[in-house]
Amino acid sequence: MAQGDIEKLIALMAKLPGLGPRSARRAALHLLKKRETLMQPLARALEETAAAVRICSRCGNLDTVDPCAICGDPKRDRAVICVVEEVGDLWAMERSAHYRGLYHVLGGRLSALDGVGPDDLRIAGLIARAGEPDISEIIIATSATVDGQTTAHYLQDRLAATNATMTRLAHGVPVGGELDFLDDGTIMAALNARRPL
Amino acid sequence: MAQGDIEKLIALMAKLPGLGPRSARRAALHLLKKRETLMQPLARALEETAAAVRICSRCGNLDTVDPCAICGDPKRDRAVICVVEEVGDLWAMERSAHYRGLYHVLGGRLSALDGVGPDDLRIAGLIARAGEPDISEIIIATSATVDGQTTAHYLQDRLAATNATMTRLAHGVPVGGELDFLDDGTIMAALNARRPL
Repeated sequence: MAQGDIEKLIALMAKLPGLGPRSARRAALHLLKKRETLMQPLARALEETAAAVRICSRCGNLDTVDPCAICGDPKRDRAVICVVEEVGDLWAMERSAHYRGLYHVLGGRLSALDGVGPDDLRIAGLIARAGEPDISEIIIATSATVDGQTTAHYLQDRLAATNATMTRLAHGVPVGGELDFLDDGTIMAALNARRPL
Repeated sequence: MAQGDIEKLIALMAKLPGLGPRSARRAALHLLKKRETLMQPLARALEETAAAVRICSRCGNLDTVDPCAICGDPKRDRAVICVVEEVGDLWAMERSAHYRGLYHVLGGRLSALDGVGPDDLRIAGLIARAGEPDISEIIIATSATVDGQTTAHYLQDRLAATNATMTRLAHGVPVGGELDFLDDGTIMAALNARRPL
């Protein structure tokens, strides 16, 4: 195809997670058909957000203000910090609309295989925050993978000197999950953590 | 979430076909992490393409030049016109890299249900082109649906007066397709169009 600009657009769209070459083409065609109502607004939103977004110097969240909207919200519980790996995990916690404390985004997890050490993560900032006198609880919400659990153990060691209580998310059967489709590790964790009815 | 700009971006991305609310969020996060290498180039590509793209006045293709690169290519066979419903169909034909003639994009197909009549499609332009003396063949490549076949029959009637040969794409078993998974209509069409080995 000699349609240089359109091909370039498709190539860029194909780099988005969830879009392959085929669906990128479909998405590009959809955009080309809706130039005024979708393509130009999307171009502007991308441009403006790219220019405005910054990393919260306190918690590592992405937002257009620093400190981020969560760190700056006077209605959040400032005594609790939930430690997550990525901004996506923070968004997932926020979607559940249940947690009202603050966050700390590590920016990844320790991984010997990928060469990610403690200095590559936002750990120094977490230790400084955890030492503040008004912090009562630190919830370690790293993922339930080997690397995630390694990171959790490492943080537990590093934060042992603080007065805050350390907790982690419960493991168990996902809501709506069927036992038949669950892996053995989850069933074992759910069984060990069983609670009286 | 109080992240207005980011939420707006996610809402726009979720309007793309192939991206739901969840994958739009993932794609937006990916973009936010790659602001210089992906987000800003994508914003510029969208902006520039939206401004530059136009509908080819000859064939209805989308391109940044008019007539489009295909209509303007002296190496294409100008005696054959392939009639397709949408630009996406034209792209699919071009991907097969086998067809070397010109196109005519109808912009849809006749549909009593959706209220699409002959005047809503680029049919007048096709009739004018088909009447040109150097056109030897018109391939009707509308889709193999009821509406697509209705459109093909309608075009056959309207183009009967021209000297060009009218053909349509063959129906049959898709390459790599297993009979077990094919619908009865396709098997019947493939059987009726069987060819000597």
